[in-house]
Amino acid sequence: MGIVVRNIRRADRSTVDAFAAFGVATVHEAQGRAGLLDARLRPVYPGAHISGTAVTVSVPPADNWMIHVAVEQCQDGDVLVVAPTSPSAAGYFGELLATAVHVRGVRGLVIDAGCRDVAELARMRFPVWSRFVSATGTVKQTLGSVNVPLVCAGQLVRPGDVVVADDDGVVVVPRRVAAQVLAASRARQEREAVSRARYQAGELSLDVQDMRERLARNGLKYVDQEADD
Amino acid sequence: MGIVVRNIRRADRSTVDAFAAFGVATVHEAQGRAGLLDARLRPVYPGAHISGTAVTVSVPPADNWMIHVAVEQCQDGDVLVVAPTSPSAAGYFGELLATAVHVRGVRGLVIDAGCRDVAELARMRFPVWSRFVSATGTVKQTLGSVNVPLVCAGQLVRPGDVVVADDDGVVVVPRRVAAQVLAASRARQEREAVSRARYQAGELSLDVQDMRERLARNGLKYVDQEADD
Amino acid sequence: MGIVVRNIRRADRSTVDAFAAFGVATVHEAQGRAGLLDARLRPVYPGAHISGTAVTVSVPPADNWMIHVAVEQCQDGDVLVVAPTSPSAAGYFGELLATAVHVRGVRGLVIDAGCRDVAELARMRFPVWSRFVSATGTVKQTLGSVNVPLVCAGQLVRPGDVVVADDDGVVVVPRRVAAQVLAASRARQEREAVSRARYQAGELSLDVQDMRERLARNGLKYVDQEADD
Amino acid sequence: MGIVVRNIRRADRSTVDAFAAFGVATVHEAQGRAGLLDARLRPVYPGAHISGTAVTVSVPPADNWMIHVAVEQCQDGDVLVVAPTSPSAAGYFGELLATAVHVRGVRGLVIDAGCRDVAELARMRFPVWSRFVSATGTVKQTLGSVNVPLVCAGQLVRPGDVVVADDDGVVVVPRRVAAQVLAASRARQEREAVSRARYQAGELSLDVQDMRERLARNGLKYVDQEADD
Amino acid sequence: MGIVVRNIRRADRSTVDAFAAFGVATVHEAQGRAGLLDARLRPVYPGAHISGTAVTVSVPPADNWMIHVAVEQCQDGDVLVVAPTSPSAAGYFGELLATAVHVRGVRGLVIDAGCRDVAELARMRFPVWSRFVSATGTVKQTLGSVNVPLVCAGQLVRPGDVVVADDDGVVVVPRRVAAQVLAASRARQEREAVSRARYQAGELSLDVQDMRERLARNGLKYVDQEADD
Amino acid sequence: MGIVVRNIRRADRSTVDAFAAFGVATVHEAQGRAGLLDARLRPVYPGAHISGTAVTVSVPPADNWMIHVAVEQCQDGDVLVVAPTSPSAAGYFGELLATAVHVRGVRGLVIDAGCRDVAELARMRFPVWSRFVSATGTVKQTLGSVNVPLVCAGQLVRPGDVVVADDDGVVVVPRRVAAQVLAASRARQEREAVSRARYQAGELSLDVQDMRERLARNGLKYVDQEADD
Repeated sequence: MGIVVRNIRRADRSTVDAFAAFGVATVHEAQGRAGLLDARLRPVYPGAHISGTAVTVSVPPADNWMIHVAVEQCQDGDVLVVAPTSPSAAGYFGELLATAVHVRGVRGLVIDAGCRDVAELARMRFPVWSRFVSATGTVKQTLGSVNVPLVCAGQLVRPGDVVVADDDGVVVVPRRVAAQVLAASRARQEREAVSRARYQAGELSLDVQDMRERLARNGLKYVDQEADD
Repeated sequence: MGIVVRNIRRADRSTVDAFAAFGVATVHEAQGRAGLLDARLRPVYPGAHISGTAVTVSVPPADNWMIHVAVEQCQDGDVLVVAPTSPSAAGYFGELLATAVHVRGVRGLVIDAGCRDVAELARMRFPVWSRFVSATGTVKQTLGSVNVPLVCAGQLVRPGDVVVADDDGVVVVPRRVAAQVLAASRARQEREAVSRARYQAGELSLDVQDMRERLARNGLKYVDQEADD
Repeated sequence: MGIVVRNIRRADRSTVDAFAAFGVATVHEAQGRAGLLDARLRPVYPGAHISGTAVTVSVPPADNWMIHVAVEQCQDGDVLVVAPTSPSAAGYFGELLATAVHVRGVRGLVIDAGCRDVAELARMRFPVWSRFVSATGTVKQTLGSVNVPLVCAGQLVRPGDVVVADDDGVVVVPRRVAAQVLAASRARQEREAVSRARYQAGELSLDVQDMRERLARNGLKYVDQEADD
Repeated sequence: MGIVVRNIRRADRSTVDAFAAFGVATVHEAQGRAGLLDARLRPVYPGAHISGTAVTVSVPPADNWMIHVAVEQCQDGDVLVVAPTSPSAAGYFGELLATAVHVRGVRGLVIDAGCRDVAELARMRFPVWSRFVSATGTVKQTLGSVNVPLVCAGQLVRPGDVVVADDDGVVVVPRRVAAQVLAASRARQEREAVSRARYQAGELSLDVQDMRERLARNGLKYVDQEADD
Repeated sequence: MGIVVRNIRRADRSTVDAFAAFGVATVHEAQGRAGLLDARLRPVYPGAHISGTAVTVSVPPADNWMIHVAVEQCQDGDVLVVAPTSPSAAGYFGELLATAVHVRGVRGLVIDAGCRDVAELARMRFPVWSRFVSATGTVKQTLGSVNVPLVCAGQLVRPGDVVVADDDGVVVVPRRVAAQVLAASRARQEREAVSRARYQAGELSLDVQDMRERLARNGLKYVDQEADD
Repeated sequence: MGIVVRNIRRADRSTVDAFAAFGVATVHEAQGRAGLLDARLRPVYPGAHISGTAVTVSVPPADNWMIHVAVEQCQDGDVLVVAPTSPSAAGYFGELLATAVHVRGVRGLVIDAGCRDVAELARMRFPVWSRFVSATGTVKQTLGSVNVPLVCAGQLVRPGDVVVADDDGVVVVPRRVAAQVLAASRARQEREAVSRARYQAGELSLDVQDMRERLARNGLKYVDQEADD
């Protein structure tokens, strides 16, 4: 507690930016179904889709002092990732903090607690994925830490990791495997484009993905509906 | 388990289509306050309003194999109704499956579990009512069944039943009583139009619905506010 | 039970109307972080922002009879505040009741239970903050009370109090302190405008709010990231 | 609504009684993983384990009138199964009703709503599986039905079906397959006794159930822990 | 905030003590189904049953400083009633604080947040009704208030009010009506004793409470089960 | 996925065993309020209190195959720590698996999912802390991993870490700091013994912990209750 880590190593910028072309579901699959934050985090308005590098903030319950401290550590392309040390529904973040990080190029906030001023955040197009929407205020009295590894909504996030978020939720990609997961996401998207075209042409996934034989081997039976009960 | 029922009897198509003119609340009331699925099912985007015939899918937790099997059983005017055999928050259904059923004329999905790619679903205008939005992937390893009667979000749904869904939720109407519930929905809507006109003219439901005497008989008392506490 | 209080004292109209210029978060802070209803109440469509005077309705579970009774007590500038005597997810309020109160100048509904017809409510622009969206119907069989003090979503609300609601939630301001809280809201908004301008110019809240010294005194340490783990 | 079905066909009594020797988990597995009521139903005191025949009661929210009606339909060996038509946390059942059904030989209550007087129920050893414990009272004003098929906690229950309940929860076995599921439960218990003995002797399920080859084929790899991170 | 009210008026001691003979459900009914705290408050061990006078404590989230302040205001026969100003799952109260209030004659704690050391509390037989069990610690940094009216788990509690708690939950009785509610509880218990005796003798509530005619008037129909479906 | 790490480094056995003398709340505080698993994990029976070394198991939803694999990696003094890769309420663990690990000296199970056979587990005195009790079965079809670092109920747990669990919940202590946290726990317990003795003698924490001056400095005011409202 009470530590701010400066000069963190961030995932490569061009890699990070390239992730914005892929949905959270695609990245999550491409990473071997890992890294997905709990589905309790929801966007405060629909339609946002970002990628960025994590600046992590560990905060006490109902105390947002460390978010103010974290602003100074943010740079263009970052995403704030905030987790309380015990569950809190308080509104840690609103339009004023959003203004402060927006001018520094921060792309969004992921917080396993509450945020507020959501109408203004939508107007500013500053996206937030949060557990709660709540106007409840916070205090500025207890230290936490900035840029330490932390667990946010059930996933370990390290400073500098890649965060991708859209209407489906939030996924984290460790910095060291970012390039490799990006390549896998691309490959997956290409495969999906082929399937999509075949589905649009009326083909069935039973055939496109060759499932019929394995289904039969597992014992699937087709019957016609009996005389009406 | 492991049964696919083909050639189900569906509710009459013109009856099914006519239900789209009535809200879920109206149909639920017209049916004697029956058939409403649990309110935990919410639309993934606002504004959709559909009616269709149920193709039911019983799926294992976190396994969407049987939805692929069900696609082949779908035809124009159907609605997929999916229920897991034990609770699951996984994302069983996304844009690719939506594409596959959309070309077959399926009107929407009702699922007591998770779905994903919700931004794409909104763009495609393929409506989904789900319990969760989650990018969590599923496997294709265990059989379930298609077109068997099942309980979805607390209601018994039989294949071929009518499903009506809008921003208020989802209601199921058994195939055999569909025509009769449709007529009752129409009658109710007409009565409501009369009430609406009187309310817009400033009349009170106390008078329109003749409640004053029964209220008095039940002991309702009118008092003026006392000197300020 | 079974009491309707007429001729309630309402907060001063110009004060009430002036609150609509301030967000719920601002009013809640200006009031000393008091009066916020539980965050489980959510708007049924985004973008509404109202202030008004409370007409309170205490209702039995799944019984909306007293809302019909309450309509007659409503006047221009009011907000209905409804709380069930035990938890209920039923849909107490829909488009017909909205029509009836809309013509009387009622500005919205706050209900710690369910509402329905939410697509129509959005079209009418009649805003509702509710705990559930549910088409479940209610009966008209048991008395409750109108314009008695009640607890709604965890806050005591008295008839005539000021209610402010926006996308962040709902806050109640007691009638007797309304003018004073309005002044404090104004003062707070002015202070925030100054901060906002400084943040937009790239200043940090660490400096604008002079936090650095207190942080250091509390033991905050800045370190550089170590050689990679 | 408003129907009481008398003279229901009950599952065979000796079969029903024999189920009490098997845990809910065993019966659920023996039935092909079907019939388990949602885990939100919990016993109000630990240690009860019953089997019996279902007398079903469909009740309005917060109204227990039909439970009073159902008492008369109960006979020795029955279990009351109560489901509200919309969600309710009210306390539908307490020590007085327990007394009334206890003298008729009813073995317990399963209710997807609330019950009360739980200290007295524990003293009487009248077991209840409920969703909530709540002292909230109910009214006696609206009809429901007795001995109609209903959905309770996500499972279809028909009057006369077998209900088995213990500290793990509640499972329903359809009357027509009761004998067959009982036999399967016995067979499963015998197989488990063999496994148990081998486990107690220190054998591993990897060997007892011959899992090693399939694990290897699926790609499981054994590694030793690396030099410490 | 920051107020401690001393020398509160407490409900009459002999009245308060007499309430311990009545269950929460009885008192709640006798009071006209009012005063019941939300069922989310559960006892940390079964079997406790207390009555006492409320000493109220309004606390910030995750900060238990004011409970320490409140100890000094407690006297023999009191019950601590604690509510956070915004939701908190922290463990505000454990065995040390229990020791401190126990020696002053405090009979229990009611808290709409978390408590800890529950094994020790059970050993000491110091009963607690809480929303959460959690070892999460709290800080001592922000003021709250002692002996102000507050909302706890949805009910208004004033200092000196009577609190009754058992395995069913918690009910509050306003000080001014305590004697009257006590008398009503006694009357209700006596009526129930008569019913209980008749039920034990095998009579039905349908007859004891004379329900048959009203049921018939409401349209209840008795039918025999049809030939098997 | 699909990795089993053998020969993990475990925390020192005498240190691990010594932790059993300290409650979870004490250890959590002694560790600087870190390491507490989410309070949703609850013991399946009251009164258990264990310490041990973590054998971690990452499992697919509703699939307990890897727990069978993990048994072989367990040794005397271990505690199984199981987390699903996406949320699951299935019953992963029952009496048979408990038997298998019990004979190897495993002290308990911590699982962020469901377990079953809880009556037998209580009889065997094999303690489990779980998120759900559910008889729902699991399959054995998909690989996971054993003895990899994982997040369980919001906390990072590494194989060989110390796990302490009692009726308050579960706390994890990293292997490398175990000795130091043990010493801090001892010191804390000694300080608490002193406080306890002073409280039992009737002293107030206000004095024992010297709070009065800081309270006054923060603005706490004592007032007497006014003439009755």
